[in-house]
Amino acid sequence: MATRSSRTAPAQRPGSSDVIKLRLTIAFDGTNYSGWQVQKGDTGVQEVIEKAVSRVIEGRHRLHSSSRTDTGVHAMGMVAHLELPKAKFHLRPQKLRLALNAHLPEDIRIVTVARAKPTFHARFDARGKQYRYTVWNHPAMNPLLRTTAWHYPQALDLDAVRQAAAHFVGTHNFRAFAANRGYAYENTTRTLTRCDVKRSGPQLTFIIEGNGFLYRMCRALVGTLVQVGRGRFRPEDIPEMLANPDRRIAGMTAPAHGLVLWTVRY
Amino acid sequence: MATRSSRTAPAQRPGSSDVIKLRLTIAFDGTNYSGWQVQKGDTGVQEVIEKAVSRVIEGRHRLHSSSRTDTGVHAMGMVAHLELPKAKFHLRPQKLRLALNAHLPEDIRIVTVARAKPTFHARFDARGKQYRYTVWNHPAMNPLLRTTAWHYPQALDLDAVRQAAAHFVGTHNFRAFAANRGYAYENTTRTLTRCDVKRSGPQLTFIIEGNGFLYRMCRALVGTLVQVGRGRFRPEDIPEMLANPDRRIAGMTAPAHGLVLWTVRY
Repeated sequence: MATRSSRTAPAQRPGSSDVIKLRLTIAFDGTNYSGWQVQKGDTGVQEVIEKAVSRVIEGRHRLHSSSRTDTGVHAMGMVAHLELPKAKFHLRPQKLRLALNAHLPEDIRIVTVARAKPTFHARFDARGKQYRYTVWNHPAMNPLLRTTAWHYPQALDLDAVRQAAAHFVGTHNFRAFAANRGYAYENTTRTLTRCDVKRSGPQLTFIIEGNGFLYRMCRALVGTLVQVGRGRFRPEDIPEMLANPDRRIAGMTAPAHGLVLWTVRY
Repeated sequence: MATRSSRTAPAQRPGSSDVIKLRLTIAFDGTNYSGWQVQKGDTGVQEVIEKAVSRVIEGRHRLHSSSRTDTGVHAMGMVAHLELPKAKFHLRPQKLRLALNAHLPEDIRIVTVARAKPTFHARFDARGKQYRYTVWNHPAMNPLLRTTAWHYPQALDLDAVRQAAAHFVGTHNFRAFAANRGYAYENTTRTLTRCDVKRSGPQLTFIIEGNGFLYRMCRALVGTLVQVGRGRFRPEDIPEMLANPDRRIAGMTAPAHGLVLWTVRY
């Protein structure tokens, strides 16, 4: 019976007209998660949302996200898609959001739910992403930001940081800034369209936007820029790091908890 | 012996030259505290800091703060003073800050330590305070602000809120906006020098500055302003609430966790 049902039911086929595709924007506090995906028995954000979906709409429904995120990294605008059998979907998107949020813990929120084209794919259609990284640059940490900002107590030369950041904008081989030195990638060339720093009192916000990112690349960029601010590297060292990625001279990796996946562009 | 010692030792006398006075700026996440002071067996921020001081400088040293704060209210710029016997004080202020922070939990930080005049009093010398109140005005809460902002999902008429807020600026009898209806006060007249709202996407920040505040007054102002934004009151109702405080028509009290004591002015 089950076999016949699945054979005759086009609802099981992706892109079929009996399936509807939804695009979700998701925010989460990554503090208590192993990142987007399950890792070593820890809880991933994805599985928590999939469970909430299955409590609202019968069955198992796989979420496909624009990106993975590391343990402790946060998101304000993670995007994921989801296919649901039309027959089971009686809720308007706004109502679905409300129902999902009612079944989710407070550190994960569905920000928007919208109908998407049948061909939409959260990962393959992503044209760019913006990450934001917060540093609290004061001898005493801000207790209200202790889970969302990196405490860096020493004074930084922000002019040098900005000069260095400007070198990252453009199309470069970022292999020196991949935590795995790029071994996992066929091609380690990426294009950054923005890399700058805003200061508001002791709070520094790094805004990094590009068409794609290597493993832990954002955190390596921020860590290196902070080391430029300390005089460990000069702004002029950046072009060399980009030109000679094998030299492995790029800087430290900033901690995960200061990073937020801010938006995904389609 | 003890009596004679205290009679001959001017170090025990406040304001004496054998005593030094310090001014502390303190930030804390109020989530896990009963407010500044101990309450019903719960932990107050004050006692936690006093314990840290006693671990760094022998003896019991009382902290005198500019204000009390309610359970769950946060602070970025709470001010308190402290008297220490000069004989026991061998640390420079910056070192004392470092030592205190090493003995404090991560949700309480000493932001600055500075020498103060012998006559300085954190409470009596305070000339004004600024509070900030954050509202997340979107159907889905921001998980990164869930302990520092009030989630208000319904749309608000911000023009009306701003018109209403402007009526609070100036010298008025704020009795209708005291949680205890002002019974605890001889005089319920206060002067507000600023009351406005900034919007950044779904985030509203109320900035309220004045020479003094009645019990829960800030939260009553914000609660009332949000109700103006919902059409429950008109901006023109505010002058009436201020003129006829006995009518008790002022609005709701906004929840504690959106409020931050931002700065104290001397």
